[in-house]
Amino acid sequence: MHGAVIYGKGDVRFEERDDPTISEPTDAVIRTVAACVCGSDLWRYRGIAEVKKPTPIGHEYVGIVEQVGEAVTSVEVGDFVVGGFTYSDNTCPVCRKGAHANCQNGGGYDGCQAEKIRIPQADGTLLATPGQPDEDLVPSLLALSDVMCTGWHAAVSGGVGPGKTVAVVGDGAVGLSAVLASVQLGAERVIAMSRHADRQKIARDFGATDIVAERGDEGVAKIREMTEGIGADVVLECVGTEDARSQAVAALRPGGMMGVVGVPHGGIDIEQMFWDNKGIHGGVAPVRAYLEQLLAMVLERRITPGEVFDLELPLSEVAEAYAAMDERRATKVLLRP
Amino acid sequence: MHGAVIYGKGDVRFEERDDPTISEPTDAVIRTVAACVCGSDLWRYRGIAEVKKPTPIGHEYVGIVEQVGEAVTSVEVGDFVVGGFTYSDNTCPVCRKGAHANCQNGGGYDGCQAEKIRIPQADGTLLATPGQPDEDLVPSLLALSDVMCTGWHAAVSGGVGPGKTVAVVGDGAVGLSAVLASVQLGAERVIAMSRHADRQKIARDFGATDIVAERGDEGVAKIREMTEGIGADVVLECVGTEDARSQAVAALRPGGMMGVVGVPHGGIDIEQMFWDNKGIHGGVAPVRAYLEQLLAMVLERRITPGEVFDLELPLSEVAEAYAAMDERRATKVLLRP
Repeated sequence: MHGAVIYGKGDVRFEERDDPTISEPTDAVIRTVAACVCGSDLWRYRGIAEVKKPTPIGHEYVGIVEQVGEAVTSVEVGDFVVGGFTYSDNTCPVCRKGAHANCQNGGGYDGCQAEKIRIPQADGTLLATPGQPDEDLVPSLLALSDVMCTGWHAAVSGGVGPGKTVAVVGDGAVGLSAVLASVQLGAERVIAMSRHADRQKIARDFGATDIVAERGDEGVAKIREMTEGIGADVVLECVGTEDARSQAVAALRPGGMMGVVGVPHGGIDIEQMFWDNKGIHGGVAPVRAYLEQLLAMVLERRITPGEVFDLELPLSEVAEAYAAMDERRATKVLLRP
Repeated sequence: MHGAVIYGKGDVRFEERDDPTISEPTDAVIRTVAACVCGSDLWRYRGIAEVKKPTPIGHEYVGIVEQVGEAVTSVEVGDFVVGGFTYSDNTCPVCRKGAHANCQNGGGYDGCQAEKIRIPQADGTLLATPGQPDEDLVPSLLALSDVMCTGWHAAVSGGVGPGKTVAVVGDGAVGLSAVLASVQLGAERVIAMSRHADRQKIARDFGATDIVAERGDEGVAKIREMTEGIGADVVLECVGTEDARSQAVAALRPGGMMGVVGVPHGGIDIEQMFWDNKGIHGGVAPVRAYLEQLLAMVLERRITPGEVFDLELPLSEVAEAYAAMDERRATKVLLRP
C-alpha cells in the first residue's frame, strides 16, 4: 500500500509502505475512506519540530474495517468506523473518568495519511456507524477524528454553557470547531476572532454571533468593548503560540475560564492569573469521551463540522495538501485514496 | 480607640490609633465584636513580606454598625454585620459576574484587628444578620469574613460536586474550611491531608471521609492508592508554597481540576499540566458572592465554620495571638475587644 512519509522540512512524499497487520489481538486494520492534514502536522513540515528520520505521518481518518484481532468485539470486518487521533482502551481508570487522551494503555498515531491503517485498542478507540453512512457525511465524520472533538474539548474545558459569552482565539479548523461546540453547548454569545472572510463565513455558519477581525491588543480591546469592559466569561485558545495565549488571557474577564487545546509554545503568567481569578483547563482532547454524542449529532445532521474542509485532493497528492495548508491556500485538506 | 499595628518581623503592638470616620458617603464605621489573625498576616510577622513602616493590620471582622455615610441604604446603625476581607460595590460588571474580589471599585483592608473599623462600599460589602445573633454563633460568623468563604471558593473553583473525590492540601483554617465546603457541595469523598491530631479531628467533624497524614511524595502515593492509582478528581490547594503546589498537581488525576486559594509562592509547570489535561482555577475569594448563602447556613446551624478557632484572646493581647499562630500553638485565634 501507499502512504505519506515526512522526510524533513517541506518534504512529504507519497510512497510505498508495508501493509499494516494485526500485531496485537486488540488491533484492527482499516482501509482508509478519507484522511486529512492537521495543523499540528505542519510543525514538522515547517521545520519547527525536528524530523530525525523519514516518518509515516497523519493521525486523522475514517475507514472500513478490513481485519480485526481475536480480542476485538465491538467492530467487525466491513464496518464503517470513526476513531480518534489517539487510541485508548476505554476501560482503564483514567478512561472511566473521561480523560481518554491520558489512557493508561493509550497513545498516538503517525502514518494515517495512508491507504490502510493499524488501529491499536480497536474496541476502545473505534466507533462503527449503523450501516454505511451517506457519502456527503464523510467530511463531517472525518472531522470527528480530531478537530471537532478538539474544539469540543476546548469548550467543555472552559465550562461553556447557557448564559456564557465565549471568545474563540484561532480561526483554523479547531477554532472553528470550538465555535460550533460553543453554540451547541448553549453559549449565549460566541465571538469568533478571525480576519479571513472565508473563515468568518464558516464561523457564522456554525452559529457565531459576532466576529472580531482585529488581532492582538486591538482584538482584546474589541472583546472588552463588547463585554462591558471586562472580557469574555470563557476564552477558547485554539492556537498555542505565546501571542495567542497572551491574547486569550487578556480577553478573559476576572473569574473567567480559559479552555486550551492549542499545543503550548510559550508560557503563561500563572501567578498573575491567580490575582485575576482566571482559570485554565484543557489539553489533548479525549476523543473517545465525546465520540458517541458527536457521531449521533452528525448522523442526525444537526452539525456539519466537515465544513472546515475547503480543499479535497487524492491521497497521492498529499504533498500538495501540505503546501496548500502551509501557504494558507486551504484551511484544512481532505484526502481520499 | 486601640488597634494592632505591625512594626516589623515579630513585632505587633496594640496601641492607640485615630478613630475611623466616614470619609466617603458609601462608608460605614463598625464597632468590632470579634476579629482574628489570618495565616496571610503571618507573612509579614515572619519577615517573609516586608513591613516598610508601622502599619495597622488585620482584615477579618464582625461588628455592630456605628455610623453610616449618607449613600448607605442596606445597613443601619445598630445592625450586626458580617463582611469580607476585601470590599466590593456588588454592582459593577465584575461583581455582577460573581468575581467580587476583582471589583472595579473594590480593594483590601488593613487594620481590622481594632476596636473600630471603617468599611468602604458598605452596601456592597456588609450583610446584616436578622436581629442580633446568638453569642455562640459569633465565631462561625467571623469565619465567613475570610477563611470559610476562601475554602468555599477553592471548592467552587475546583468544580467540587456530587460524585467527586476531593483531596485538600493544607490543614490550616482555610484547608479545613475547604473540607467543610467540599462536604456541603456534595463531594462523594473528601480526603484531608493533615498530620496534626487536633486538625484531623476538625476535618472529621466537618465531614472528611479520609485523612492522609503522610506529606510530599508519600502523601501523593497515598492519595493515588485511594484512587485506583490515578489521583483525585479535584485537589484544593490551600497553602501556596511551591511544595504544596507541586504536591497538589501530583495528587490530581489526568483531566482533573485544582482549586487554588493559597497565595502563590512558587511556580507551576503549566505546560506539563496541558499534557496531563490538568486544570487550575482560583484566586482571592469573592466573599460577597458567597456571603448570603453561607450566612444562611450558619444561622440555620447547618455549618459551624467557627470550629477552626482554637484560641480566644482579648484584642489587647493581639501580640500573643500572633506568637501562638507563628509557633503553631494555635490554628486560628479569635480576638475580642
